Amino acid sequence: MYKIAIDAMGGDNAPKAIVDGCLQALANFDDIFLELFGDQGSLESLISNHERISIHHSPDVVTGEDEPVRAVRRKKESSMVMAAQSVKDGVNQAIVSAGNTGALLASGLLVIGRLKNIDRPGLMPIVPSLSSEHPQFILMDAGANAECKPINLHQFAILASYYSKRVLGIESPRVGLINNGTEAGKGSSLTKEVFELLASEESINFIGNIEAKDLLTGIVDVAVTDGFTGNAVLKTLEGTAKEFAKFLSRTLKSGNLQTKLGGLMIKSALKESMGQLDDTKQGGAVLLGIKHPLIKAHGSSNAEAFYNAIRQARLVLESGAIETMAHHFE
Amino acid sequence: MYKIAIDAMGGDNAPKAIVDGCLQALANFDDIFLELFGDQGSLESLISNHERISIHHSPDVVTGEDEPVRAVRRKKESSMVMAAQSVKDGVNQAIVSAGNTGALLASGLLVIGRLKNIDRPGLMPIVPSLSSEHPQFILMDAGANAECKPINLHQFAILASYYSKRVLGIESPRVGLINNGTEAGKGSSLTKEVFELLASEESINFIGNIEAKDLLTGIVDVAVTDGFTGNAVLKTLEGTAKEFAKFLSRTLKSGNLQTKLGGLMIKSALKESMGQLDDTKQGGAVLLGIKHPLIKAHGSSNAEAFYNAIRQARLVLESGAIETMAHHFE
Repeated sequence: MYKIAIDAMGGDNAPKAIVDGCLQALANFDDIFLELFGDQGSLESLISNHERISIHHSPDVVTGEDEPVRAVRRKKESSMVMAAQSVKDGVNQAIVSAGNTGALLASGLLVIGRLKNIDRPGLMPIVPSLSSEHPQFILMDAGANAECKPINLHQFAILASYYSKRVLGIESPRVGLINNGTEAGKGSSLTKEVFELLASEESINFIGNIEAKDLLTGIVDVAVTDGFTGNAVLKTLEGTAKEFAKFLSRTLKSGNLQTKLGGLMIKSALKESMGQLDDTKQGGAVLLGIKHPLIKAHGSSNAEAFYNAIRQARLVLESGAIETMAHHFE
Repeated sequence: MYKIAIDAMGGDNAPKAIVDGCLQALANFDDIFLELFGDQGSLESLISNHERISIHHSPDVVTGEDEPVRAVRRKKESSMVMAAQSVKDGVNQAIVSAGNTGALLASGLLVIGRLKNIDRPGLMPIVPSLSSEHPQFILMDAGANAECKPINLHQFAILASYYSKRVLGIESPRVGLINNGTEAGKGSSLTKEVFELLASEESINFIGNIEAKDLLTGIVDVAVTDGFTGNAVLKTLEGTAKEFAKFLSRTLKSGNLQTKLGGLMIKSALKESMGQLDDTKQGGAVLLGIKHPLIKAHGSSNAEAFYNAIRQARLVLESGAIETMAHHFE
């Protein structure tokens, strides 16, 4: 039985969507037990008796406005920090939360703790691509560390490659370094140094520098970058896809009769295309480099997205990937 | 009469598309004179007599493979370096090239020279947005400087704001700093320091931090960032729009009869939507912060794109923006 701690009060749609996602996960997997941290009254009203669920009352909540480190230090009775503490104490094996990203990262770092010899954990989302052959890639770091040293990106590459292999089942994950040109020798002093480190790292399949414009073509399984660039790339990607779809929809609706009619006829195909870039099905982002699995679900998670984040936590536990990583760095 | 130096041998479609773009510009503007640098024989075969065009033979060419600084130092008889030298010497007032970006930036820096008190010039493309109210924004730096100090971004903001005001006619350009969150106090040590500098800079209309996901909504007129992030953002933007359009087109073509038919009916509307993100009409990117206008046209420029780059060079000269900038920093 995999025991997973749930921050039931985090996210825009908590606790209802969180609870619904939990119930869906329990229905689909009979080898998980969920401990929900949150307001007992609210949670009890949403949950009928279930033998693989328990509610742990937490009187406080970390909000979106809380300063991360301060929240973790001061709000020890919040659903997020108590859930993280239960993992630290060995009561649960993993944590899933849709709450304040910064505070969750700080909980991972300060409460659960880093893997031995890992300098900085990184935030690693699974991003859908537009390639049928390689329908997704992972990006690390997507924003945990706004400033990075070469050793951080070196470790990100190894950690993410392990994850890709062990959890996603990619045999020899292609690892690329996001840079301002594909030629070796390109880039900032950071990327130049990282290139050398990755080129001589035998435990990964490093294919060299890549440009952000090729990410959606499925050019790599693992894209390595610093947290500032990763955050900008991910947000540009999400924003462009979203704005472009909105613009196209406006154009079709405001067109002439033929365009309007054609727009209606392709509606389902268009929806399917957009669905390809929908990250609801991908699960959440993993904070990789800490002692236990921590999954950050999107703040706007609905029940399905939160279900997939739990599914992902279970996959990570089943794979034993974190133990393997710990071993590699010892 | 505005005298403009043209690198006729730079770009994937040189010299034919370059010459065609030049002829189009001469037909549309009667106040420009173009001096084309390149292989005399090839150019003469493409140009019939024109009273506002001259050919300056240059025996050498900078290729895409050339290392930038070395190319500028060694290939003094190349079309690019000779064109830049003619601007330095006062024979011409501006230069337009679709050649090797790095070498062109180096030509601007080493041959034409920086404005007084400008530490680093930045590369500033005009990027189409998807907003009808604000159909474009400028991004600076889009890749000239992979590593930046706070003072560089401070200067980028002032230079680009001047350009937006004087050349594009935006009355009070909204300047935003690309960051990993919108709140003040977010970001790397670089963006935190830059935020303070921009907030107290009275010559610009600084609206604060912006996230890359909002760029296409027309949230700012000027987006300021370091050259590494700017390069990654621009490439992600271009790549996502392009891959998404390709994917959509594949989906429509491979759909059922209804989808295929609907796809045909919206073809022109779809093309128009894509056209909104087509940068052919935007002109090129300006290397801002040097003594004379330097316009980098896209390497894959066709005649229309190159025409627009010349049109842009003329606009910059007409505006007197470079002189105003020089004055500001003196």
